[in-house]
Amino acid sequence: MPDQSWNMGAPARVFADRHIGPTPAEVQEMLKTVGYGSTAELMSAAVPESILTAPGTGAPLDLPEALGEAEALAALKELAARNAVRTSMIGLGYYDTLTPPVILRNILENPAWYTAYTPYQPEISQGRLEALLNFQTMVSDLTGLPVSGASLLDEATAAAEAMTLARRASKAKGNAFVVDSDVFPQTLQVLRTRAEPLGIEVVVADLTDGLPDAEAFGVLVQYPASSGVVRDPSPIVAAAHERGAMAVVAADILALTLLRSPGDLGADIAVGSTQRFGVPLGFGGPHAGYMAVGEKLRRQLPGRLVGVSVDNAGRPAYRLALQTREQHIRREKATSNICTAQVLLAIMAGMYAVYHGPDGLRAIARQVHSRTVALADALTERGFEVVHSAYFDTLRVRVPSSGRVVEAALEAGYNLLAVDQSTVGVSVDETTSAADLEKVLAAFGEAERGSSRIRLSVDESADRLPSDLARGVDYLTHEVFNTHRSETSLLRYMRRLSDRDLALDRTMIPLGSCTMKLNATAEMEAITWPEFAGLHPFAPLDQAAGSVAVVRDLEAWLAEVTGYDAVSLQPNAGSQGELAGLLAIRGYHRSRGEAHRDVCLIPSSAHGTNAASAVMAGMRVAVVACDDNGNVDVADLRAKTAEHADDLAAIMVTYPSTHGVYEDTITEVCRLVHEAGGQVYVDGANLNALLGWAKPGEFGADVSHLNLHKTFCIPHGGGGPGVGPVAVRSHLAGFLPNHPGQPEAGPHTGVGPVSAAPFGSAGILPISWAYVRMMGGDGLRAATETAVLSANYLAKRLEPHFPVLYTGAEGLVAHECVIDIRPLQKATGISNEDVAKRLMDYGFHAPTMSFPVAGTLMVEPTESENLAELERFVQALIAIRGEIARVESGEWDADDNPLRGAPHTAEALTADVWEHGYTRAEAAYPLSSLRQDKYWPPVGRIDQAYGDRNLVCSCPPPEAFEL
Amino acid sequence: MPDQSWNMGAPARVFADRHIGPTPAEVQEMLKTVGYGSTAELMSAAVPESILTAPGTGAPLDLPEALGEAEALAALKELAARNAVRTSMIGLGYYDTLTPPVILRNILENPAWYTAYTPYQPEISQGRLEALLNFQTMVSDLTGLPVSGASLLDEATAAAEAMTLARRASKAKGNAFVVDSDVFPQTLQVLRTRAEPLGIEVVVADLTDGLPDAEAFGVLVQYPASSGVVRDPSPIVAAAHERGAMAVVAADILALTLLRSPGDLGADIAVGSTQRFGVPLGFGGPHAGYMAVGEKLRRQLPGRLVGVSVDNAGRPAYRLALQTREQHIRREKATSNICTAQVLLAIMAGMYAVYHGPDGLRAIARQVHSRTVALADALTERGFEVVHSAYFDTLRVRVPSSGRVVEAALEAGYNLLAVDQSTVGVSVDETTSAADLEKVLAAFGEAERGSSRIRLSVDESADRLPSDLARGVDYLTHEVFNTHRSETSLLRYMRRLSDRDLALDRTMIPLGSCTMKLNATAEMEAITWPEFAGLHPFAPLDQAAGSVAVVRDLEAWLAEVTGYDAVSLQPNAGSQGELAGLLAIRGYHRSRGEAHRDVCLIPSSAHGTNAASAVMAGMRVAVVACDDNGNVDVADLRAKTAEHADDLAAIMVTYPSTHGVYEDTITEVCRLVHEAGGQVYVDGANLNALLGWAKPGEFGADVSHLNLHKTFCIPHGGGGPGVGPVAVRSHLAGFLPNHPGQPEAGPHTGVGPVSAAPFGSAGILPISWAYVRMMGGDGLRAATETAVLSANYLAKRLEPHFPVLYTGAEGLVAHECVIDIRPLQKATGISNEDVAKRLMDYGFHAPTMSFPVAGTLMVEPTESENLAELERFVQALIAIRGEIARVESGEWDADDNPLRGAPHTAEALTADVWEHGYTRAEAAYPLSSLRQDKYWPPVGRIDQAYGDRNLVCSCPPPEAFEL
Repeated sequence: MPDQSWNMGAPARVFADRHIGPTPAEVQEMLKTVGYGSTAELMSAAVPESILTAPGTGAPLDLPEALGEAEALAALKELAARNAVRTSMIGLGYYDTLTPPVILRNILENPAWYTAYTPYQPEISQGRLEALLNFQTMVSDLTGLPVSGASLLDEATAAAEAMTLARRASKAKGNAFVVDSDVFPQTLQVLRTRAEPLGIEVVVADLTDGLPDAEAFGVLVQYPASSGVVRDPSPIVAAAHERGAMAVVAADILALTLLRSPGDLGADIAVGSTQRFGVPLGFGGPHAGYMAVGEKLRRQLPGRLVGVSVDNAGRPAYRLALQTREQHIRREKATSNICTAQVLLAIMAGMYAVYHGPDGLRAIARQVHSRTVALADALTERGFEVVHSAYFDTLRVRVPSSGRVVEAALEAGYNLLAVDQSTVGVSVDETTSAADLEKVLAAFGEAERGSSRIRLSVDESADRLPSDLARGVDYLTHEVFNTHRSETSLLRYMRRLSDRDLALDRTMIPLGSCTMKLNATAEMEAITWPEFAGLHPFAPLDQAAGSVAVVRDLEAWLAEVTGYDAVSLQPNAGSQGELAGLLAIRGYHRSRGEAHRDVCLIPSSAHGTNAASAVMAGMRVAVVACDDNGNVDVADLRAKTAEHADDLAAIMVTYPSTHGVYEDTITEVCRLVHEAGGQVYVDGANLNALLGWAKPGEFGADVSHLNLHKTFCIPHGGGGPGVGPVAVRSHLAGFLPNHPGQPEAGPHTGVGPVSAAPFGSAGILPISWAYVRMMGGDGLRAATETAVLSANYLAKRLEPHFPVLYTGAEGLVAHECVIDIRPLQKATGISNEDVAKRLMDYGFHAPTMSFPVAGTLMVEPTESENLAELERFVQALIAIRGEIARVESGEWDADDNPLRGAPHTAEALTADVWEHGYTRAEAAYPLSSLRQDKYWPPVGRIDQAYGDRNLVCSCPPPEAFEL
Repeated sequence: MPDQSWNMGAPARVFADRHIGPTPAEVQEMLKTVGYGSTAELMSAAVPESILTAPGTGAPLDLPEALGEAEALAALKELAARNAVRTSMIGLGYYDTLTPPVILRNILENPAWYTAYTPYQPEISQGRLEALLNFQTMVSDLTGLPVSGASLLDEATAAAEAMTLARRASKAKGNAFVVDSDVFPQTLQVLRTRAEPLGIEVVVADLTDGLPDAEAFGVLVQYPASSGVVRDPSPIVAAAHERGAMAVVAADILALTLLRSPGDLGADIAVGSTQRFGVPLGFGGPHAGYMAVGEKLRRQLPGRLVGVSVDNAGRPAYRLALQTREQHIRREKATSNICTAQVLLAIMAGMYAVYHGPDGLRAIARQVHSRTVALADALTERGFEVVHSAYFDTLRVRVPSSGRVVEAALEAGYNLLAVDQSTVGVSVDETTSAADLEKVLAAFGEAERGSSRIRLSVDESADRLPSDLARGVDYLTHEVFNTHRSETSLLRYMRRLSDRDLALDRTMIPLGSCTMKLNATAEMEAITWPEFAGLHPFAPLDQAAGSVAVVRDLEAWLAEVTGYDAVSLQPNAGSQGELAGLLAIRGYHRSRGEAHRDVCLIPSSAHGTNAASAVMAGMRVAVVACDDNGNVDVADLRAKTAEHADDLAAIMVTYPSTHGVYEDTITEVCRLVHEAGGQVYVDGANLNALLGWAKPGEFGADVSHLNLHKTFCIPHGGGGPGVGPVAVRSHLAGFLPNHPGQPEAGPHTGVGPVSAAPFGSAGILPISWAYVRMMGGDGLRAATETAVLSANYLAKRLEPHFPVLYTGAEGLVAHECVIDIRPLQKATGISNEDVAKRLMDYGFHAPTMSFPVAGTLMVEPTESENLAELERFVQALIAIRGEIARVESGEWDADDNPLRGAPHTAEALTADVWEHGYTRAEAAYPLSSLRQDKYWPPVGRIDQAYGDRNLVCSCPPPEAFEL
């Protein structure tokens, strides 16, 4: 049978059979329900023939033959062995760090944390929300600014977000953004990439001489500077404020434990990276960037923000705050396209602070600093000029030949930075031992005036920080940072938090458009191997041959499965992939002398991020109407392309559509846009419904971003990391991102970097590499088929109970289905939110709520859920429909019923007084299977409005939780 | 301050500060409560001066300086690099296997599983009990014998247990045990070690000729044989039964998926190893041995047995069955000294079966077999003689020179077995690929009649198993083995099970005498590195240089901290360490012509295992009385040593005593026994109270076993693995265990092997290595001091509420304290069991119940619990005392109160009807802190007697759980 073709050997040996939930027998049963004889028949019926690579059968993908788990891990071991990890003392925003093993294993390697979804359903996300609140509190305390977001993608993009925030918030009229010439080079280049389409002028200036004369709305100071020097930013801050401009300080998080904080120095915004708080280098990422702002700017903050509110019993409860700021709400009025955060990494950095506490962090900083001083003194004694007298962890040293020193250091096993021909950079980090310093010192050799017999001597109290910048304000005084000093205590705290959350390790998370499928252990293993985790992003590329091979393999495989010609893995989130794709289109038009093409058509059904990205790419958004079925209204498209025949830049469509439908007009859409001179951008969010059957690069699209954290199994991590590669046809390949620090990272004609690191979140690419390598072409095709079958199975099973919206050919959906709660709400007052919350009582994470259409639930089962789990979900929804019927019939009060009361905590259900019109058992155990296995939400329904009215974005005092 | 001397650097950097729970400030606070100025003062007051290494200050231990976590892991990486792992096709009971990554990471690397305790408190152990029941069902199904235990230590010791079981159960009069000459050599040698002291004659016979004439009570057949040949055991079984002897079949668990089962063939007992079901080789262990028996022998089964019973609501619930069989109850009447099982490894093997299911296991076996056939056929075609025509996975091949073939294979990266000069052994396993076979084939070279151009060809249907032995009976038909085919499903199943249990990752487990302290992540990391995990126990020793270095380091360090001269790490559980120690004493006496010395004195307070071990070592037990304080009655000892002056072999004492007291008569005890010609055995269970202050080898003892899973941080794994090295003074060193397969494993004068593998559970020794290496001498001493301080702190805090029994000098306890519930029971009927179960409602694992004294609770906090956790426990016990007071006063009914009703399930507390004299809130949230963090026991109080009356020891049908 063709449907079982992926079962290529003994059942136990084939990874695809472990990844795909339903067994071949279950597939047959599900096909029967859906009414097709095989998945190939189903696909042929569902997908428009015009886009099929090979109608009728699916298309064999030209990928290496599938490997078993052990074989794939062996292959990755071989790649890992090709990386030659040296001790990197390059600095530039990346520093080696000791990840406490207890955090590494119990956060980064623990599915309870890494398989969690973005905390949009806060009642079942209290653990990671608390962990993020710790992160926010840590950033806020250390930066001295009261409102910190829940992380950004990296320091460079955080700086870019700060730039645009400054433009919005500044009272100054100018259009320039002044950037410290002593800034990290990748930060400067990302700023340039992001400034150009927005018409912002980036003015680079040596700020030691004060603020230049530019008409600036903002200024960014690096603190300590890229060269290591520690200068007082406050004169620049003051000068900026005098002109009505905003002051951004990009600050090193560890240095802030010893230095006065940006907030204390008057800064409006602080940005930076928390990588060195226990997050492995990973050849550039992922790491959590941060941004903190003053109270006045809090509603301008890009990205996610965790806040404290209360639940229906008045308990403090965490949830995402001020969501109306976010891109999916504001669409083309959005001020940022940031969607994903770096939650998993932010949680690690926060836990690092919880474990070390203020004293521990200060001790680490002092150790780093005193060792830097020891090195500086020894170098000086040896007759070398150490350029700056005030520094924290980084030195600039004048030498006769930087090449010779760097070479000698390399031979000893160390990467230093050749700043210019006569200057070497050295950065000390918490892993640097005295023995390391001796070897580095030796690499400098003998200077003219000095003696190589000078030895190193570390004085723990040495201090070369400017005394007026010495930190006087306490930080991390909250109990959580002063409690978990033992491993036992931290381990239990992390377990307690993770137990509050529902992640994929306990239940399906049927989130439409988010593709929450198996993140297999074998895929996860390699990312914490030191060979992949230990590389500095600016290490010489010959040390990273294995990682580069992973990048190149994955680029080639992604090109093959999507039908595109070139891929860049640099964008470290889908939003950045979108931006990169649109910048490629922009670059293409400009290269052809058509810079005036700046209109981006976006269907009304599109995800809000699309519009936000278009604006960031300097485009004007024109909305294309959709018909009642959610499909692009081709007549309106025809009108719009005619209207914009001269200035059309692109259309952005999602395929299958955000309604979960294979629109059969897609080829027509592509044709119309191309005829009008525009480019076609297909959002790859729903690629899981196409692999092995159709390729966007073949059926008419010019560019897509892919979400490796969706289709390609990088775990969602509770809301990040995401990875959003961009794939283009050949005519756009020259306009992909590149990187100033790494010529191999992109075309020399490229649009500049969109992420801080040359290869983006290179550290987690082994996950997707392993997925593709273990699935092979047939496995990927089978995954798509099963995902589509599962969605149609759910649609068929739920249809008798809830209307299923938006079907395509033959009444089929693609990989997700939308069920409509609006008629029931009209009749009973029970909303889709009530259903979502009630699902928690049944042990489920809710489907996507009110996207793409308010009042609906969008369900995406993916291929990884077996029939038992699909049926558990069906039974829960049928039971909930029965509960709604009891409200409908008046048996239950419209305001007092288990749906409105959901979710129910154990505490509420064991209260001595029970005053509801339904029983405790009806609340707790609506299905008897729940008596075997019950998840208890830690809080009841959370009051969203209260939290926004009473915004608290750092850890509340322990007394707040007293009952 | 001397108490903080272990704080040797920045607080964040020192491992000891992470291992030890209380901070220096908390230590001061606790000292104040206990009434001492420093831990040194406390120790000096508590420990008799006569045994102190250096009175007043503790004794610096001569150990390498403490390393940080990253440094220790780097040092282990260097050792790992000295292992050169080759593909081992040696066989002899050890086969390479593919551990599914999802099992490796989520069981073996997951603290929720590995930090769990033995499931003596079944209500909070339902997860691992279910996992063990799966194991039992798997073994029972595959062996065709209805009652399987929850694992034994290894195949060789399981065979020894079967031998003694056969002797007990056999109707035959003889004293001989006939052993298949084609048995694994280590099994034979362990049988000999165990038979000799018991006066059993081991008769080795070629069973192809039938049962020899010996007067035998039992026979053991290896199936398939060590040489690979598959012979029908039933004629031997029948011959044995004719003579009234018992038939033991040692069977390969994987082969049984294709072969008729031992039970089917009439065997009374089946034994073997489940290593090849996904458990890494680990240079010999730990792995789970198995034993299954017929119904008639079930009360004779050694080791632990999981059974099904019901809870107070009638739900099926698991617990340990027939505990009255066990050694701690039966003492010198015990039939085995087995205490620990190999729970963690048994769970892995069981999960491997759950994941693969019967079809998957059969497919693996068929693959192994067909590849073996392919190799055999190719060898035959090349002109080599393959000795046997019926085989499963192992071949014996005649060659001109076995040395040359083995050498050639080694060069190609394969370990084969040189059986004799002209015979090579090859065993195929599930990791063996066709490419591997090609290389092995090439190593054989060209035979006279053959051609080296013969290539290998695998025919999946090839079958060289005797057709009358083909398996006809289904197995693993239970739902659990036919449900979790996808990784998602298995992951959730494992999570669901672990969530039912309370392990160290959620709460302190204050188990007296079991020392449940931190198992640090950094200690655990190395054991799953392939360099340590991938070694075959009989691989050439030069491939294992790193593992041997771990063994040698640890031997030296353990000798240093205990004051002994020689250490053997071979015993793979404390019980085996005890036996080895007693065998050393036995060997010593015999070497001096004093074989008649066979009386072992054991204080009445001793752990029952001591007596059982003495009997196994061929000794007669004489009990020494204890006084009212639980101390050895020196007058009685004097009388006993006088009485046995001529036949005294040894005394076994525990120090500090099982009552948790530093007896000040210990030196007197040693002197008296030595004067009477006896040897002093100090049980090392309580060594955690001595390190850095006193050394048994210096204060008068001749031999001890240590429990690495207690003092030296190997996790308890839910009831195993244990590791029980034996340490002796020099005069006993020649009588330590050795091993036939490895001359380096012990002295040539040794007593033979006590475990199957030369270095016992070598695979997990990196845990203890890392612990000692990261603590250093000062850290170990600080751990002891803190453990003693914590116990005394608890004693002081609890004294006002409960009588604390058994204190030593100045009213101090050692590392644990006994609280007496008997007076309260007399007054109220509330028992120590009620308190233990009620502690579950408070989120605690109960302390040790009724050991050493019925009606008490023995509390050992260890050094790893911080003050907050100690106080949480104190508050819980104080609150429970208040609850008892309400029973005492009559406010609560003696039979209807939260103590008797404990533990309370969420289901019971949310029932619509509540008919108790106490409220739901009083049951669920007796302390308001529980509202923040509540563990819900999955079942209520379990009816122990019901389960023993209605014994069910394999998975009940799903319907049993319907409500």
